[in-house]
Amino acid sequence: MIVGVVGGGQLARMMIPAAVELGIELRVLAEGEGMSASLAATAVGDYRDAATVLAFAEGVDVVTFDHEHVPQAVLRALVEAGHAVHPGPDALRFAQDKREMRARMAELGAPQPDWAPVDSADDLAAFLADHGGVGVVKTATGGYDGKGVRVVRSVEDAADWLEGAAAGGPRLLVEELVDFRRELAQLVARRPSGEAVVWPLVQTVQRDSICAEVLAPAPDAARIQPVVDDIARQVAEGLGVTGVLAVELFETTDGRVLVNELAMRPHNSGHWSIDGAITSQFEQHLRAVLDLPLGSTALVAPASVMVNVIGGPASGAMADRYAGALAAHPDVKVHSYAKSTRAGRKVGHVTAIGDDLDEVAYRARAAAAHFDA
Amino acid sequence: MIVGVVGGGQLARMMIPAAVELGIELRVLAEGEGMSASLAATAVGDYRDAATVLAFAEGVDVVTFDHEHVPQAVLRALVEAGHAVHPGPDALRFAQDKREMRARMAELGAPQPDWAPVDSADDLAAFLADHGGVGVVKTATGGYDGKGVRVVRSVEDAADWLEGAAAGGPRLLVEELVDFRRELAQLVARRPSGEAVVWPLVQTVQRDSICAEVLAPAPDAARIQPVVDDIARQVAEGLGVTGVLAVELFETTDGRVLVNELAMRPHNSGHWSIDGAITSQFEQHLRAVLDLPLGSTALVAPASVMVNVIGGPASGAMADRYAGALAAHPDVKVHSYAKSTRAGRKVGHVTAIGDDLDEVAYRARAAAAHFDA
Repeated sequence: MIVGVVGGGQLARMMIPAAVELGIELRVLAEGEGMSASLAATAVGDYRDAATVLAFAEGVDVVTFDHEHVPQAVLRALVEAGHAVHPGPDALRFAQDKREMRARMAELGAPQPDWAPVDSADDLAAFLADHGGVGVVKTATGGYDGKGVRVVRSVEDAADWLEGAAAGGPRLLVEELVDFRRELAQLVARRPSGEAVVWPLVQTVQRDSICAEVLAPAPDAARIQPVVDDIARQVAEGLGVTGVLAVELFETTDGRVLVNELAMRPHNSGHWSIDGAITSQFEQHLRAVLDLPLGSTALVAPASVMVNVIGGPASGAMADRYAGALAAHPDVKVHSYAKSTRAGRKVGHVTAIGDDLDEVAYRARAAAAHFDA
Repeated sequence: MIVGVVGGGQLARMMIPAAVELGIELRVLAEGEGMSASLAATAVGDYRDAATVLAFAEGVDVVTFDHEHVPQAVLRALVEAGHAVHPGPDALRFAQDKREMRARMAELGAPQPDWAPVDSADDLAAFLADHGGVGVVKTATGGYDGKGVRVVRSVEDAADWLEGAAAGGPRLLVEELVDFRRELAQLVARRPSGEAVVWPLVQTVQRDSICAEVLAPAPDAARIQPVVDDIARQVAEGLGVTGVLAVELFETTDGRVLVNELAMRPHNSGHWSIDGAITSQFEQHLRAVLDLPLGSTALVAPASVMVNVIGGPASGAMADRYAGALAAHPDVKVHSYAKSTRAGRKVGHVTAIGDDLDEVAYRARAAAAHFDA
């Protein structure tokens, strides 16, 4: 069994342990030398180049991804050449274009914020007028970690993006500014033959538009879990997603749950599962894209908390803090992505597991703090 | 942090996930192409050749091992060249020569079977006369998985080995045939600066002199755990072991615990810790040889059972049975060493965790049975 992963970032890296354990050969097409997943890199090249990706795909059983940025033309060339591609282009286009995603969610009847495509200043003005004069304008393509997202209170606030779109830049959409109590994420894995499994619902905490920590399971999840189970399964099936899908959600102050974003790959909101679940999202992704039976998503402990290491030590390497961090926290799992440190960059994470969420969160945050600049 | 591992078998392979997660670079000197740990192989060569091993050691922070067979002369050449070597030659000689091991255990006062060096037929005859006419003759060097071990009831039963020893072959020793109730193993990890930690005591079950399964923790361990804790720490310190040490033990029918064998590396009796403990023996070994603070050895569930896959499917690959095995056992962790199958060869293992030992053992055995020929 050989899985080819396009992209050499930390998500590809974290597939390596799962692949080694199951005896799966992993091959990575990395963007350059020294990437996070370089141990498994068998090729270096541009994922936007069809010839490069087609050459990489020769001899693998399935092609999957570290990110969602492989162009549709390249994805379709892979399929036409007879390669198994999971998730496939018909699913990935919904992760690549937020307008297509919102339109498809609406067709599926999935709960989501009010939204509208924005092709002109008039479109935006009309939406703002209907929504108390405020909205969240997004570029349909190319956004991540808060980029490509802007809260606007007038058409002028989006003038540059409107100009850009008119000049052939990213198309736009606008969404209602949701008054939310907290953010949640529901991970689901689905294999081509249809089997789908969900992990327990988690709560995500963002800082500066970057995921800072994840509480698994989400506190007080019992009421919402059946609802989000249904949403996640419906979205995975409705969009034809294969592999892991993360459904990011708002829980509104009036108790509803709305779909915020989708990620069609292992996702930061699931890193806790490496240490906190019987089957991690990385193992599950490999099983799913190979169309193997999926593993149990049960927790190994009542509570898991994952805290990202963002930026990392000024010294340049997480390992420089290991002596202190590991001595103080022998029961916390430290994960390094072997990336150079840089403000705002996710360079690793720590996970603690245990019986009591507050106690576990305290330990995870204290351990992660060892790696602060 | 760069760890060099001499030997490319499954123990080196199982260090890869731990290294990836901690951001440690692992380099393996493999015996040939296509070894179990080939993903991390940066060199292929003969571990008995000092020049080969010295060249491999260039640029790594510490040299450690997949097995105990690196000759003393090569180990000492590494030390003389200034390399950190863990475990070091002074410790490894006790794993390489059972006569030296028994003599050192006696000095330390560690409980062990009666034994004697055998340099002649008379030595053996005298021991047998003192021990009811029966003994276990072993070659001091080169034995494993039941090889180099023979129960004898007369000098004639060992005639070929005595001849061999006289002709310059492996030296011999004889041990009393212990009337044991069960076999146990106590894993301990020790770092150069002295810190040592033990995992819970486990029970090992051998079939045809090969480890078949491991129950963690050993049933009814409470009475024995403090005793074996002390033995393991005493042996690790007394022999100067760095890294993981497995102390294999007999529990006698009259309730004593005797040291049977030592292994100075991650050991089959600790594979359960990958899924069943906060810190696996593989992660701990890396931490120990790098002299990093050691991790918690607490269990993640009350019971873990590991069952070896020995021989493997007649089809030649464990993966050929994944569809059935994973579907029937979504909560069991399957580990493949990516080795070709062969009667009597350990090609993988499965581990189940849960609350009740009997139930967990049932699941692990049933899952492993999917991979029988």
